[in-house]
Amino acid sequence: MRIALDAMGSDTNPEPELAAAVEAVKKYGDEIILIGPQEALRARLEGLPGGAQGIRLVDATDSITMQDKGLALALKAKRKGSKTSMAVAMDLVQNGQADAFLSAGNTGGVVVTAYYRLGMLPGVERPAVTGLFPVKGGACVVLDIGANPEVKPEHLLQFAIMGSVYASALLGIARPRVALLSNGEEPGKGNELVKHTYPLLQGSGLNFVGPVEAKEIYGGEADVVVTDGFSGNVFLKTSEAVGKMLIDILREELMGSMRTKIGALLAKPAFGRVRKILDPSEIGAAPLLGVNGLVFKAHGRSDSRAILNGIQTVRQAINADLLGKINLAISNQLHPQQETLDK
Amino acid sequence: MRIALDAMGSDTNPEPELAAAVEAVKKYGDEIILIGPQEALRARLEGLPGGAQGIRLVDATDSITMQDKGLALALKAKRKGSKTSMAVAMDLVQNGQADAFLSAGNTGGVVVTAYYRLGMLPGVERPAVTGLFPVKGGACVVLDIGANPEVKPEHLLQFAIMGSVYASALLGIARPRVALLSNGEEPGKGNELVKHTYPLLQGSGLNFVGPVEAKEIYGGEADVVVTDGFSGNVFLKTSEAVGKMLIDILREELMGSMRTKIGALLAKPAFGRVRKILDPSEIGAAPLLGVNGLVFKAHGRSDSRAILNGIQTVRQAINADLLGKINLAISNQLHPQQETLDK
Repeated sequence: MRIALDAMGSDTNPEPELAAAVEAVKKYGDEIILIGPQEALRARLEGLPGGAQGIRLVDATDSITMQDKGLALALKAKRKGSKTSMAVAMDLVQNGQADAFLSAGNTGGVVVTAYYRLGMLPGVERPAVTGLFPVKGGACVVLDIGANPEVKPEHLLQFAIMGSVYASALLGIARPRVALLSNGEEPGKGNELVKHTYPLLQGSGLNFVGPVEAKEIYGGEADVVVTDGFSGNVFLKTSEAVGKMLIDILREELMGSMRTKIGALLAKPAFGRVRKILDPSEIGAAPLLGVNGLVFKAHGRSDSRAILNGIQTVRQAINADLLGKINLAISNQLHPQQETLDK
Repeated sequence: MRIALDAMGSDTNPEPELAAAVEAVKKYGDEIILIGPQEALRARLEGLPGGAQGIRLVDATDSITMQDKGLALALKAKRKGSKTSMAVAMDLVQNGQADAFLSAGNTGGVVVTAYYRLGMLPGVERPAVTGLFPVKGGACVVLDIGANPEVKPEHLLQFAIMGSVYASALLGIARPRVALLSNGEEPGKGNELVKHTYPLLQGSGLNFVGPVEAKEIYGGEADVVVTDGFSGNVFLKTSEAVGKMLIDILREELMGSMRTKIGALLAKPAFGRVRKILDPSEIGAAPLLGVNGLVFKAHGRSDSRAILNGIQTVRQAINADLLGKINLAISNQLHPQQETLDK
């Protein structure tokens, strides 16, 4: 496997990426293609135990930062000969020199660069940023969590197909339960988008379990939840913010007196699972679905362990032929007679 | 003050309502008008210390339950002579026999009944369910959290004006910071609704601080946040679900070993503030804004303390003339020349 890794992605780049690359080569023996300013990276790599062995450096003199947005970002993403680490990496995926790309960088940058340089899979109109959320009894795939503030019902159907393939191929769920994010579980509830998407999902042949609210998502009642990128982003950001606030308050309160400090010390092992649930490095990375290539996004706050977990997820996706399976599922949806013949 | 209280609202009605009514009469000396099946309520009241003194019972033989929805609910809400506790109570508000109404019942029931029986304030097109969220350093008013899955930019402007008056009149904030829920803080972000609402809020004369995400809301960077009822509901439900999940996991883990159990016992005082933040009874009640009458909604899970807190909020709203102030603010917005003359 040849995995392209954006050296300029994470908030504290390139250290987490370099450490993870060295570790991944040791652990898996894969080729890691590190994309970034070649000379600077080489110098740093040589200072690490294990060094540049098994790592291929590909030069990218520019990068997309968290500040890039709008037209400037679109130009960096699209321009022929663009030297951002994302553009260089996607070109490697596009021309078959890399099997997949992983970045902890600007989500908008990943989406727009992938859209322009890899294009869309036939039958998919919009790329979807996917999130994997820790829920009761496992994990739930939620998409879109940020690429498309406005979508049409048929886009949500495409998201549902792709999310279902992802849950099945990477989480090992035979027949993923697909749900639709809504403001109530009754079919009459929801905005216009939800109401028009409902019949499409019902007739999709997917294991559609109906509309859900956050309670059902965190209760583990769905494996895949589709939504527009605006509401999906509200779901994501609210989850992060509430988790952080509660932990902050708890920490503050526990430090309030000697008694609670001692209690906290004794109770420390119990906080591990809560911290784990709120820790983005546990998930590692989640795919951008719909583009014609394997592209994964890790959290900006990723440390080297998070990037390494991300590389593991990317390896699973390559192994499982995620892209081929999505392609097939979408084309079966477009030409259902063929699916019937195959049976 | 004459406060109409829905005796059939909360999940465990009518006990919390009865206990709170008795307590409120003792504490404030107000008249509480309890709406529900008169005979049954009288019998129960007489069993309570303090009894029916200062409480006026008004008969309502029907009620709107959590199961009522759609057309059936609309008919119960609208029908002349409807005997649901909500309809009877709103009629009392409408004809001036009660100053305000408080219910812990079906939110849809409260919204639809208020819409049909009280009508809208001039210049307000949609009623907004308001939520008061505990955030860093205080509380944040978020609306709409559920009444309107689809709204127009001018509706959000009306919500902003009403929310601002509410924060100023009831939370004592001189010039409330008004924000717009979005999927990013940059002006270019957002869905079509957000993009079209942005200039309206900028030109509104309100203290508009721009788009916010959940992080900024919980970080205490806004006093009022406006959004459509779909996204607002996702924000509400996600907040509740994540809070509940984390507390459940923590409780489970703390009970995992003798060591953590002892730690939990010692650390117990520290959990108080976290529990308080997640406890709906702390907030008491929040208003349904935009209808021509003071209507407050308490959480379905309210206990008597929550209802009593709710009654306190309702008293503040009556004292502060919330309805009159909203009416004035909306009419100033409709006829801005008058506002200029007033200055």
